[in-house]
This record gives sequence, C-alpha cells and structure tokens, in this order.
Amino acid sequence: MEASPAPSPPVSDGRPRRSGYRRLPVQQRREQLISVALELFASRPPEEVSLDDVAEAAGASRPLVYRYFAGGKQQLYEAALRSAAEELTSRFTVPPAGTPTEQLSAVLDSYFTFVAEHDAGYSALLRGGSVVETARTSAIVDDVRRAALRRTLRHLGVREAGPRLTLLVRSWISVVEGASLSWLDEGRTLPVAELRDWLVDQFVAMAAATALRDPQSAEVLAGVLALEDPAEPRTGRLRTVLTR
Amino acid sequence: MEASPAPSPPVSDGRPRRSGYRRLPVQQRREQLISVALELFASRPPEEVSLDDVAEAAGASRPLVYRYFAGGKQQLYEAALRSAAEELTSRFTVPPAGTPTEQLSAVLDSYFTFVAEHDAGYSALLRGGSVVETARTSAIVDDVRRAALRRTLRHLGVREAGPRLTLLVRSWISVVEGASLSWLDEGRTLPVAELRDWLVDQFVAMAAATALRDPQSAEVLAGVLALEDPAEPRTGRLRTVLTR
Repeated sequence: MEASPAPSPPVSDGRPRRSGYRRLPVQQRREQLISVALELFASRPPEEVSLDDVAEAAGASRPLVYRYFAGGKQQLYEAALRSAAEELTSRFTVPPAGTPTEQLSAVLDSYFTFVAEHDAGYSALLRGGSVVETARTSAIVDDVRRAALRRTLRHLGVREAGPRLTLLVRSWISVVEGASLSWLDEGRTLPVAELRDWLVDQFVAMAAATALRDPQSAEVLAGVLALEDPAEPRTGRLRTVLTR
Repeated sequence: MEASPAPSPPVSDGRPRRSGYRRLPVQQRREQLISVALELFASRPPEEVSLDDVAEAAGASRPLVYRYFAGGKQQLYEAALRSAAEELTSRFTVPPAGTPTEQLSAVLDSYFTFVAEHDAGYSALLRGGSVVETARTSAIVDDVRRAALRRTLRHLGVREAGPRLTLLVRSWISVVEGASLSWLDEGRTLPVAELRDWLVDQFVAMAAATALRDPQSAEVLAGVLALEDPAEPRTGRLRTVLTR
C-alpha cells in the first residue's frame, strides 16, 4: 500500500542526540509519526498543523520527520489518512454466527467503536474543506466506501448487483456515515446502541421499500429473511411490507 | 451575498478592443464570467482550469477577468459555487397544492431538473478532492444542506426538531444527494421518474422506521398522514408500520 521510499535508518549520523529525542526502530518510528500526525490533523484543521508540530509531539526532530516523509506534510497527511482508512476497513468483518440483523448490529458496533476512538480523526477522514484535501485523499475515502459496499453485497450473497440494489446499499452506507458524523457533531447525545438499532431499522426499511420495485432486491431480501429469527420484530415488519 | 468589491466598468481604458471581445454591461459581464467559470470548473478538475481558460471561453481578456475577480481563480470559483448553491436552494420551494407525497415528488422533480441541467457542475458542487476546496467552499455546500433541512422541517410543520427527527431528515437528504451523484456517475441509466419515486418511498420507509422509536417523528408523520390521499399505496404501508 505504501508508495513512499524506504527511509534510511534515522540515527546513523553519529552526532550527539538532542536531549528528549528517543531512538526508535525504523518501522516503529514510522508508525509513531503517522499516529501522532493523525491525532494532530484530527484535532485541528489540517492546514494549521505544521511539520514542526508533528516533530515536537513525536519527540523527534524536523529533519527526522522529513527523512521518513520526504514529501513533507502532504505525504504525512496521506499516510495518516491511509492508515485510518485501512483500520476502518478492517472493522467491516462480519462475525460468522448470528442472524443477519445480529451480524449487521455487530458490524455497526465495531464501526462505532472505531468512530468513538478516532473522533476528530474520523471527521477529518470524511469531511472536506481542508487545503490538504486532494483527488488522492478523496480516492482514499472513496476506497473505504467501496470496500463497505463490496463487503455488504458479498455478505448478502450477491455476485452482480444491479443499479437498484447498488443504490440501496450505497445509500444506506451514506446514512451510516452521515449519522456517525452528526453523532460526533452533537456531542454524542444519542446513546450509541440506539443509533445502531436505528441504522439496522433504516436498512430494513430502505431495503423493503426498494424490494417493492426491484426483483433483485426482493430476492436478496427473501434470502436474508429465511435466515432471520421469526420472533425478531424487524423481520415481522419486513415480511409485512414484502408480502403486500 | 457577494463580498467582492464592485468592479469598475471594464471598457473604460480607451485602448482599441482586441477583435472578438464583446462589450457587456457590468452586471451582465459578471454573471457571464460566473456562468462560464461554472461550466469550466465543472467539466474538468477545477485545479486544471486557469483564468486564461475562463477569459478565453468568455471572450474576454485576462485583465478584465481580474478586474471583476481581484482574488483570482479562488474568488471566481467561490462566486460560481455560490451562484449554483443559490439557484439550487431556490428549487426547494414546495408547491402549495397537493398531498404531502405529491409535494415531495414535485420538489424532487425540480431538484433533478437542476441536477440534469448542471450535471458536472453539480458534481463539482458536492464532491471534494479539489485543490480549490477550502473551509469556505465546504461552508457553501453545508449551507445548501442546512437550507434543505430547514425547508423540509418547516414543510412538516415542525418548530423545534429533536435529534431523532433531525437525524431522519438529514439522512434522507444525504440519500437524495448520494442518489443523484450515482445517477450522474452511471450515465443516467435509471429513469429520473423512477429515482424520484424511489426517493419518496425511501422517505416514507425511513420516516416510518424512525417513528417506531421516536414520539416526535410519529406525531409529525401522523399529521402528514392525515393530509394524504387514503388511496395512495405508500400511505397504506406507512399506516401499517405506524400502527403495529
């Protein structure tokens, strides 16, 4: 994934170290710089973060930061974004057991754990309006959305999704995204469990409304329904709508 | 709305005009430059559009463009974005007659007419990934979303929306946005009337799912339902879900 050149070892220049700087192995230093950068880029507008800020927060010198990220702030920003995107994508794994709504709830729980842990970092990942946003950073964010779409369709057992089913899943993903941003914006007022249940309800409702007009969505939903616990109230509503 | 200084008349320098340049009244020239800029910024990545391109497409000189937009490309870009945003917002007007679903359909028709007319300009309005995107341009786009939220809530007769009702309306607006971007991306494959009906269905489904847990949303929906044609099939489904 990383296109940056392998950095030379940062502590081979033989000069005395400035006090307070710690020696770290190459990979560990790289990860530390990325993690520190992500925190900084997240907690204030990325255009207000300087490489000096990153160096200081990492307990490193500015030249050291440049040795790892010769492309400067933009390269560091993109590496931080990519690291967050990879971690987020890894959360999309569906647990093997449970009914479809239980599995969906579990994925959403894992997603909200990420959002809560990364807070401002997550907002920075999804929000534009930053001078460091480029076609490349947008592509990183779009990759996350595409991964979410792919995983969802695969989980639903769909090989080739038609335009209506794709639209449904994409739209629901944008609802999840928007809902989590609103949740952060509004100081996490709503309990996360309620938000998760609301999003599962939304999926059911949106899918049912799409199935009314689209045979592929109806077929996929019928398959999901067969795996669902008949006592689950959402299933009852879904059945009602589907069988009208 | 415009913070730019009033331009001095552009044709008072007494030098002979280069052939092909046309004299235009101040306001008309300003509007023409904005409209030409919007087309250009929309049809290719804004960072690849130069002021020379705008001048050429407008049949004007580069100094003339600068006389109107002393802040250069960024100012022109923002003016173009603001102009598109204002036009889009003006489309959110709800027709006075009709049932709620008919009114919603009419607003969506008007919205899709804007989207179809502005095509790439609309994508540029909503998509990040451009070097000319800043906190200021994001604020313009957010203003449009806020206006859509306000109009929708006002139309629903809501004075003070709680977090769940706000989340519902915001989420639906993001579904509309995402759906229209997908529609453009995929070469307008789906008929716009189908997309419009799908979005009305989505509103009904999402609202019904929210009303199950939120008394305010349930109350608002009950009010809307009372105005709805009882023969309208969506209303039937909504009633079913609400009365469970």
